[in-house]
Amino acid sequence: VRTEEQIIQFLQTRHSGGGRAGGGRFGNRMAVGIGDDAAVFRASRGSDWVVSTDQFIEGQHFIADCHPPEVVGYKSLARAASDLAAMGAAPFCYLLNLALPRSRTGAWLDGFARGLARASRQFGLRLAGGDTSHGKTIGIGITVVGSAAHGTALTRSGARVGELLYVTGTLGHAALGLELVLRGVHGSRGAMPLLQRHYFPEPRLAVGEWLAARRLPTAMIDISDGFAKDLHRLCAASKVGAVVWEGKLPQFGIPAAWSRLRLKSLELALHGGEDYELLFTVPWRRRTRIPSRIAGVPVHCIGLVRSEGRIQLEGFTGRTRPLSARGWEHFRSGRS
Amino acid sequence: VRTEEQIIQFLQTRHSGGGRAGGGRFGNRMAVGIGDDAAVFRASRGSDWVVSTDQFIEGQHFIADCHPPEVVGYKSLARAASDLAAMGAAPFCYLLNLALPRSRTGAWLDGFARGLARASRQFGLRLAGGDTSHGKTIGIGITVVGSAAHGTALTRSGARVGELLYVTGTLGHAALGLELVLRGVHGSRGAMPLLQRHYFPEPRLAVGEWLAARRLPTAMIDISDGFAKDLHRLCAASKVGAVVWEGKLPQFGIPAAWSRLRLKSLELALHGGEDYELLFTVPWRRRTRIPSRIAGVPVHCIGLVRSEGRIQLEGFTGRTRPLSARGWEHFRSGRS
Repeated sequence: VRTEEQIIQFLQTRHSGGGRAGGGRFGNRMAVGIGDDAAVFRASRGSDWVVSTDQFIEGQHFIADCHPPEVVGYKSLARAASDLAAMGAAPFCYLLNLALPRSRTGAWLDGFARGLARASRQFGLRLAGGDTSHGKTIGIGITVVGSAAHGTALTRSGARVGELLYVTGTLGHAALGLELVLRGVHGSRGAMPLLQRHYFPEPRLAVGEWLAARRLPTAMIDISDGFAKDLHRLCAASKVGAVVWEGKLPQFGIPAAWSRLRLKSLELALHGGEDYELLFTVPWRRRTRIPSRIAGVPVHCIGLVRSEGRIQLEGFTGRTRPLSARGWEHFRSGRS
Repeated sequence: VRTEEQIIQFLQTRHSGGGRAGGGRFGNRMAVGIGDDAAVFRASRGSDWVVSTDQFIEGQHFIADCHPPEVVGYKSLARAASDLAAMGAAPFCYLLNLALPRSRTGAWLDGFARGLARASRQFGLRLAGGDTSHGKTIGIGITVVGSAAHGTALTRSGARVGELLYVTGTLGHAALGLELVLRGVHGSRGAMPLLQRHYFPEPRLAVGEWLAARRLPTAMIDISDGFAKDLHRLCAASKVGAVVWEGKLPQFGIPAAWSRLRLKSLELALHGGEDYELLFTVPWRRRTRIPSRIAGVPVHCIGLVRSEGRIQLEGFTGRTRPLSARGWEHFRSGRS
């Protein structure tokens, strides 16, 4: 059992030698790091700073008895980092707030720190400060800081009627993993590959930076609470509507061996959460500048921006139906 | 009972027209505010950005049945803002993480938002983003962002042997208020003025900025967990020791009417928490440049920096005794 000050020291140790984050492209900009009252960083000329904060709460965003602590550590940072990807910002550093029951300050914390350090190296986000406290349940708060060239950060609000709608990667893979966990079959034979995206999602940082640097999208958002829900958010912020072509959606195919679960891949793709893919809009005249892969990640043109009012799904036959904003509401009261 | 999205909207509303924070000296630097994936701000030439994060957890930092929600809202931001004061940074904006039981999303949240908005106006910190979630107990995480002229932010680690030790304001007032609350006598006649500093502490932002702008201190820290504990932290970071003159300590005098509580003002001043005063060191040759008041707050010379190893209290007779690092450990297990 560690004290609060020992926890901070321990987390620092786990992060030392953090690859790209350690002495990388932002190394010299961190004037004061962890251990003082605040972190201080030098702003370089011509760049904007991008800051976002997110929570990862026991019983809401994870279930401590189901999700290994490495997964909790990794995902808590991945979730916050995805907001930087959605702005097209380059990752810089993060701050951690951690509330823990005393029973979690031993082996659980070891695993948590391992997952967090792995994510920190992978995303190039250096730990710059934080606060630890006792808490009745596990509560994690992460603030990420990134930078973008002056004026290039991408908001949700720039989409215009007639533009094309794009999405990265695949949709529904993470939600399938969550279903396996919630149904208690995640330990079954052959389940592991299906859990990968639910356990260790990959925020599309490189894709976001690539797009923002070229100023190609007019609006962008990350898909954290489900494709449909986040599409509704982007449309609301931009005051537009949209039509999505069902046949173009990159749905994750459910392996036949799991058909007994009676899950529908379209349902998971539209309304399952935690994909952490990017959804963005591009003017028609720039469409030829969007390649089929960016930084190794497939990019799909999946619909059109329409005038405000309706968000629709167009099926294979050409018939449309309303696409509701229903999304992944963490662990709904009925479940947890 | 409000949903998560309604809570964010509600908090935004409560903050609109936030005085100095609204369109003040940093107004034009906020390129993207609340409501997108992240906040974006323009860096001005020659300034460093200062970032810190802090938690305010039910049962640890406050007791929901004793502390009014206005107090919880105000203090959660005051506590984080005090870290900016300790760096000598100018306040800019903050991000809020909020985990709430459903029962707290009505009247409790109203009061909380009122206190938070009051603090936001008072400290010039604009709400720039956040995340809300359901939680079993109330959990608040606040990240503050400030700025300082290039290289002027004050750390804990610059104190050198022979320098003078200073502290602002009075010590022990907040701890007295906490004792009244813990003993359940905070509703008693005449208690209210004694609760003021415990309920609505004043982070020394103007003092911190004044000192940093003139580059007078060599090290600075805010007193959040008790004078003795935070002095130990400053000394450890600077690799020095110290002697504190008991007769010079600005102890808050306990009114005679409360003598029955058998509290010792020296004990509260040394080991009570939440004063949020500033503790700093100044080289001997600069001592004449430290006025007796800065921005209306009294400043006291209370000791000397000595070589590493011992931190001592020198009594009225000249005899010294060790000053232990014992501090305010939030609500110790024996209490809560």
